Amino acid sequence: MLRDTRSAVVTLMTDFGLCDSFVGVMKGVVLSRCPGARIVDITHLVPAGDVRAGAFALLTAYRYFPKGTVHVAVVDPGVGSARRAIAARGSDVTFVGPDNGLLSLALRGETSVVVRRIENQRLFLTPVSATFHGRDVFAPVAAYLANGGSFAEVGPETDEWVRLPWPEPTRGVNGWLGQVVHVDHFGNAITNLPNTTLEPASVNRFTLLCGRRRVPVGTCYAAVPKGRAVAVAGSSGCIEIAVNGGNAARSLGLKRGSKVRLVAPG
Amino acid sequence: MLRDTRSAVVTLMTDFGLCDSFVGVMKGVVLSRCPGARIVDITHLVPAGDVRAGAFALLTAYRYFPKGTVHVAVVDPGVGSARRAIAARGSDVTFVGPDNGLLSLALRGETSVVVRRIENQRLFLTPVSATFHGRDVFAPVAAYLANGGSFAEVGPETDEWVRLPWPEPTRGVNGWLGQVVHVDHFGNAITNLPNTTLEPASVNRFTLLCGRRRVPVGTCYAAVPKGRAVAVAGSSGCIEIAVNGGNAARSLGLKRGSKVRLVAPG
Amino acid sequence: MLRDTRSAVVTLMTDFGLCDSFVGVMKGVVLSRCPGARIVDITHLVPAGDVRAGAFALLTAYRYFPKGTVHVAVVDPGVGSARRAIAARGSDVTFVGPDNGLLSLALRGETSVVVRRIENQRLFLTPVSATFHGRDVFAPVAAYLANGGSFAEVGPETDEWVRLPWPEPTRGVNGWLGQVVHVDHFGNAITNLPNTTLEPASVNRFTLLCGRRRVPVGTCYAAVPKGRAVAVAGSSGCIEIAVNGGNAARSLGLKRGSKVRLVAPG
Repeated sequence: MLRDTRSAVVTLMTDFGLCDSFVGVMKGVVLSRCPGARIVDITHLVPAGDVRAGAFALLTAYRYFPKGTVHVAVVDPGVGSARRAIAARGSDVTFVGPDNGLLSLALRGETSVVVRRIENQRLFLTPVSATFHGRDVFAPVAAYLANGGSFAEVGPETDEWVRLPWPEPTRGVNGWLGQVVHVDHFGNAITNLPNTTLEPASVNRFTLLCGRRRVPVGTCYAAVPKGRAVAVAGSSGCIEIAVNGGNAARSLGLKRGSKVRLVAPG
Repeated sequence: MLRDTRSAVVTLMTDFGLCDSFVGVMKGVVLSRCPGARIVDITHLVPAGDVRAGAFALLTAYRYFPKGTVHVAVVDPGVGSARRAIAARGSDVTFVGPDNGLLSLALRGETSVVVRRIENQRLFLTPVSATFHGRDVFAPVAAYLANGGSFAEVGPETDEWVRLPWPEPTRGVNGWLGQVVHVDHFGNAITNLPNTTLEPASVNRFTLLCGRRRVPVGTCYAAVPKGRAVAVAGSSGCIEIAVNGGNAARSLGLKRGSKVRLVAPG
Repeated sequence: MLRDTRSAVVTLMTDFGLCDSFVGVMKGVVLSRCPGARIVDITHLVPAGDVRAGAFALLTAYRYFPKGTVHVAVVDPGVGSARRAIAARGSDVTFVGPDNGLLSLALRGETSVVVRRIENQRLFLTPVSATFHGRDVFAPVAAYLANGGSFAEVGPETDEWVRLPWPEPTRGVNGWLGQVVHVDHFGNAITNLPNTTLEPASVNRFTLLCGRRRVPVGTCYAAVPKGRAVAVAGSSGCIEIAVNGGNAARSLGLKRGSKVRLVAPG
């Protein structure tokens, strides 16, 4: 992958929070080794140790970045233990992170994936701490790759890496059974039901059931009066449940794992 | 506006929060279409749907950016509905956002403003979602403009766009009547009373009344002992109320809309 | 220091929070005066006015940035009063901030330090507000220096600048007495006991006492079962106390200043 590395994009996604210097330090390391890197934060407020939430954030984000972007993801409760570190390359995209499933939801969408174990210690900072591989391992390896370094140099190829299961929706009698996979900043509850399960011609005739609540399907948040719940085709590609001007998760008691049922018209 | 687009500045201001990938995704879109963009966050913690708070943040920030900066603002409770999207150009500054007043406080300060409806769908991502125009409409249009794209291509010029009213202070018997327009991170309450209402020669002889509290006017936060309230000429150009080492909004029960009265000496 | 300023790195560390436009405004000022600056946030969530916490954040971060980086730090409860502003230069690193000790913990680690009072008003924005020197003084001076400006132009050299004391650990009968110097986002309590007090060959035979709790020393967070406390060699260079998968500060009642005792084996 010969590329002009003057504007290589490196994204960071962690559970490090924004109160400490952790994220800034990772950026310092990246810029020390790849001075032309353009660093973008995906988020650093993944709940501490919540690998699935981090994997979802990466999944929803990575496609929107320029070709050649290197995505560094660190939600890593096993840092310093025997858990492995991996780098993965899809078509024109590279991921770097711990081998705990964090990269796996994004990798599901890539057709040809090569995964390598990160084992080449010459790429690391020395000494490597037992608590901050974001700084000592992942940032320098990402910078090396963003700077045009050879992928093969990172470490040996492997097919054994941790995949998180994705909860596929199932067909029910009169529609689909699904669940909430993420609650966002606005309290919108994103489900695993693809937008494509809504036939465009009859969107408004679908209903979503959450517990005993019947939520109408609409074309946008403002399709219902303020304070009312509505299900819409979401920007992640899956149906989401919102309250116009409000917080659906709070109002409807929804959280990750909450079951929902999409009822087709007629 | 011929400009070297290698270092075009694009700012982002939203109510998207920092927990999800929304902001990162917008940056990915901008960098995909304008690889040289330098992206700066104004804030993403505008209270959800609070257009006035977003408008104030933009107002206080935009003047401090280099000529040619493109400011993208997305506080957009009506996303996906019939509300329009606009791009506005002042002297050497461009704004992009929903037509709900969000840009209007900043535009008040510009002498010659041209506003265009954003209607050229060829500039958008496809498909355009009903819930995330920050990603699908505003970011790509901003990147197009930051990259030197023609302003006229965005859509037709219009004079009909939403203006938020600005609460002008009124003259009272012995001074000015005003109100709090913003409470900041420190709990300082920024009013709509211009610093210029304080005559420099006699600043310390003014008093600000908030409810029954008499707050002395001082030259800086530390002009009063720790824990005491003081009104000072604020950095936004308007008088603000602070508690030295404390939180004025909490201590004095101030919030947006709270009435204040500036009493002139003598 | 002749340097290619096209990629000068400028870091920002403040207690300004992320809700307002303060941080964005500082970046606008930096980019207006040093268009090639690469701006990195260390953190903006230092507790309001907590100079010691800011000093610690800077201390843990600055070494990881490229040579020539300019670090701007603004935790400045005395803004607008008689407190001085300083710029300090170590070996290939520059700091800019108020003279209240904020820069001093980082400067302890530098062997040859030159400190200058920031007094050259021609470098400032005009007028200089009494409440936002981050915008009006520190950002423009940092941009001037990042852009290759002369350090001597900033103002006169001085040896009188505020140093924060660093709480050195003391030797006890059977080990070391120390204290917590920082609690991080994860609730890990970082002490002032250097990792080097743990002899590598017998790490697991040390114990850390916090009040009446005996915390074993381990090699990583996951060295103990979930929910159990462990002390590890931390990434800052000092021993830290964690709870695997939990929050040590909350579980063990630790905060800055809490006393700890490291008990050596045998």
